[in-house]
Amino acid sequence: MAKLADLRKKNLELAKKAVRQSVSPDLFIINAANNIDELQKIINTLSKRLREWYSLYFPGLDKKIADHEVFVKLVLKEDKKALQKELKLADEMGFDFEKKDIEPILSMASIIADMGRESKLLEDYLEKTMKSYCPNLATLAGAGIGAKLLCEAGSLKRLAMMRSSTIQLLGAEKALFRHIKTGAKPPKYGYLLQHQLVQRAKPKDRGKAARAVADKIFLAVRVDYFKGKFIADKLLQELEVRFK
Amino acid sequence: MAKLADLRKKNLELAKKAVRQSVSPDLFIINAANNIDELQKIINTLSKRLREWYSLYFPGLDKKIADHEVFVKLVLKEDKKALQKELKLADEMGFDFEKKDIEPILSMASIIADMGRESKLLEDYLEKTMKSYCPNLATLAGAGIGAKLLCEAGSLKRLAMMRSSTIQLLGAEKALFRHIKTGAKPPKYGYLLQHQLVQRAKPKDRGKAARAVADKIFLAVRVDYFKGKFIADKLLQELEVRFK
Repeated sequence: MAKLADLRKKNLELAKKAVRQSVSPDLFIINAANNIDELQKIINTLSKRLREWYSLYFPGLDKKIADHEVFVKLVLKEDKKALQKELKLADEMGFDFEKKDIEPILSMASIIADMGRESKLLEDYLEKTMKSYCPNLATLAGAGIGAKLLCEAGSLKRLAMMRSSTIQLLGAEKALFRHIKTGAKPPKYGYLLQHQLVQRAKPKDRGKAARAVADKIFLAVRVDYFKGKFIADKLLQELEVRFK
Repeated sequence: MAKLADLRKKNLELAKKAVRQSVSPDLFIINAANNIDELQKIINTLSKRLREWYSLYFPGLDKKIADHEVFVKLVLKEDKKALQKELKLADEMGFDFEKKDIEPILSMASIIADMGRESKLLEDYLEKTMKSYCPNLATLAGAGIGAKLLCEAGSLKRLAMMRSSTIQLLGAEKALFRHIKTGAKPPKYGYLLQHQLVQRAKPKDRGKAARAVADKIFLAVRVDYFKGKFIADKLLQELEVRFK
């Protein structure tokens, strides 16, 4: 019995060690990318609420400034009168707030600005981590798209085992299953639609461009996984020549 | 024609003035309450993500500390070793992070802490505004529940026009329509379930308690709307005597 208990203890230790070693940069990248997505969503939601609230005070600004980030900056930077002068906006319908009623609005705006800064910090971190962990993928696909592919696959290893046609359609699962189930048109690209080479192509050539990019990413990921050399610049150049 | 243009201009001015005057503390309260709800949701979501990420580093803490606020505080306060000592936790499965990989986690934690502070600031503001705008409602129902009733009604005026049976069921719209449509049991309370007197009652008496509280809130809101005296302490006392 003593032996059995001993065996159990050793087994547990081995398992714990295996868990400890299973933490890889994959998980850092996936967590950072998920948090960036979440922050972006939150910034959007809170910005909409801020616009609604601030519009009681100065309705003109909401209509004039469409970009959330700029809107938040302006709200924090100056008071209503200075903004009216700067943007040449009349304010005929705004309500004159007491200081105590404008304060909570401003502090919401400053929280949103903080989250914007946080999101940028995480993006920097993501890019750095991608560039040291999978430099070929990061360069060829860009850190953002590369991280999305990695998240969808689950790890660099699993991404490296995928065929290029699978990589081409990562992020288009919904459309793919709609195609399989209902016979609708098959998707031509998933996350790769956001790639600059696919974006630059004419709409009718985008499928072709996505396939070409996926082919090169397929190579890049395998090289990254097996710790090969940096070949992304060459691959990228080949693509650029082909889709000039 | 000149006259018509003149008339149009005057009309516009009048309309704009009316819009300007339509801003009332109702809108401050509704905006503040909605933002508090939103922040609470966000804090929850981000805390869950933080736990997931931090657990790569120190998995024991997530299991040990259930409260999000405490969790965030501990993460920010001390490093892994100090926490292990303080909480007497073994760490057998955590991964040893480099500084650069722990930094983004800590900055996420500090954003969550900031949002917690912001939410408290807004709660203070809400309470102050409620107490000056509708002191009877704020005292009788509490600022939180009072604000929810006000949001659901749309304004103090509309809340003051409601019957007490409607007030009793505000916040239970889903259950009410299920009752009307499918003949399921009718709800006995909405937001009022969270009222301390209803909470304190035995489960079988909660419907009765909610009705009594709603009756008093009905009076309180009307007094507030017509700028009457402060009677909430008397009303509250009557309720306390009845539900001792």
